[in-house]
Amino acid sequence: MEERLILISNDDGISSKGIDTLIRIAQPYGKVVVVAPVSVQSGKSHSVSLTRPIRFEKQYDSERLEKYVLNGTPVDCVKSALTKILPRKPDLMLSGINHGSNSAISVIYSGTMGAAIEASFYGIPSVGLSIVTHDLDADFSVVEKTAPALIEKVLEHGMPEMVSLNVNYPVCELDDFKGFKVCSQTKSYWYEDFEETIDKNGNPAYYQRGHLVNVEPDNDNCDENALAENYASIVPIKVDFTDYKMIDELKKWNL
Amino acid sequence: MEERLILISNDDGISSKGIDTLIRIAQPYGKVVVVAPVSVQSGKSHSVSLTRPIRFEKQYDSERLEKYVLNGTPVDCVKSALTKILPRKPDLMLSGINHGSNSAISVIYSGTMGAAIEASFYGIPSVGLSIVTHDLDADFSVVEKTAPALIEKVLEHGMPEMVSLNVNYPVCELDDFKGFKVCSQTKSYWYEDFEETIDKNGNPAYYQRGHLVNVEPDNDNCDENALAENYASIVPIKVDFTDYKMIDELKKWNL
Repeated sequence: MEERLILISNDDGISSKGIDTLIRIAQPYGKVVVVAPVSVQSGKSHSVSLTRPIRFEKQYDSERLEKYVLNGTPVDCVKSALTKILPRKPDLMLSGINHGSNSAISVIYSGTMGAAIEASFYGIPSVGLSIVTHDLDADFSVVEKTAPALIEKVLEHGMPEMVSLNVNYPVCELDDFKGFKVCSQTKSYWYEDFEETIDKNGNPAYYQRGHLVNVEPDNDNCDENALAENYASIVPIKVDFTDYKMIDELKKWNL
Repeated sequence: MEERLILISNDDGISSKGIDTLIRIAQPYGKVVVVAPVSVQSGKSHSVSLTRPIRFEKQYDSERLEKYVLNGTPVDCVKSALTKILPRKPDLMLSGINHGSNSAISVIYSGTMGAAIEASFYGIPSVGLSIVTHDLDADFSVVEKTAPALIEKVLEHGMPEMVSLNVNYPVCELDDFKGFKVCSQTKSYWYEDFEETIDKNGNPAYYQRGHLVNVEPDNDNCDENALAENYASIVPIKVDFTDYKMIDELKKWNL
């Protein structure tokens, strides 16, 4: 039987602690090929590099692990892996572990989830993993201990085409960790708070800050609230933006 | 009564023919404020600039039209407009007119739709408009003649929070135009075809090409097929990535 092939990418770049942890988690399950951005791609969402060429180079090569670094976005990494790098369609795609939450509406801004979602378009079981701290030296020990059980379930059950998983971990000790909870994406938006700086020419420039506004704080079944209770949230993700309820409403407009 | 305030952005940049056309279409309905990228942002999806500062400057100022150019993505433009530029929440947000189709799965890669979707998060009725040709000198005359009726309906009915419209126009003469058709997002994915070039150091570099694969060619009610019949497709868009059907399935995994 052919060895399992696992693609890994992320949005924090190939040198992050999160991706190193994910590689360690994945290696028992097959040959791992990493195709990851050379630089930080946080907030890159589902973006693709259309106006400039993509370059990648092999950075590490052993029998059971290869690493490629790429000058583009997480979605570029997945497209390049599937089109130019991998010998065949991988059996599993893992993205992350992201340093920072991708729960709630953050999923749409996330490069980590962009990569996982892109892989799901090609029928590859895909999981994006994140932890709710931006600490570059985040403690991933709970993820390392518990994510293998999830990966085994994904390999056992497979996933429907176009469906991926958005998994977010709380920051807590293993003793306080409540396990996985299947959730919906929390209804929410970002409240923006631009931090003004003055550039060297004396002109204002702004860094985007802000915080997530949870508009369903009492919903026990959404990811943001599960995380607050020390569950790791799992949201099954499917990209069909159509608002089917609104279709009937729009038809009444007699356009 | 206070004059209506209309925000316009796009992803082709502030100098494109598409945004000029959209400004002309919008002006009869209120004061127009344009906040648009300085450079082409095609394929930027919902990305935000998190690691570098945002700058914008006023390029044009008259009583009924202001234009700001910004060094970021379409979503950066909307966030900056709402946070730093506009005196109040706008009554309408229009994005485009994009030179190139944003039908089917292209909606997730689209900067044009990124901007419209972002505005919808803040309860602003939002419409993204595109035409299915990348021609920089595209003929927008059918859009100019027919989009006003759609805008009037949006202003009359309003839109639920979090819902925007993805409107795509075919390339055809007015006589052949069949009108608007309310549709679902076509199930589809991009088949990648990387074009190899050799850079000045003799190394390979790749441009992403490819084409959309329509996996429901017989569905009369999806946008891709409506466009092929010379309808302008309207897909109501709501961003909840949760696959609710899969939630029950996942719960059976006993994680």
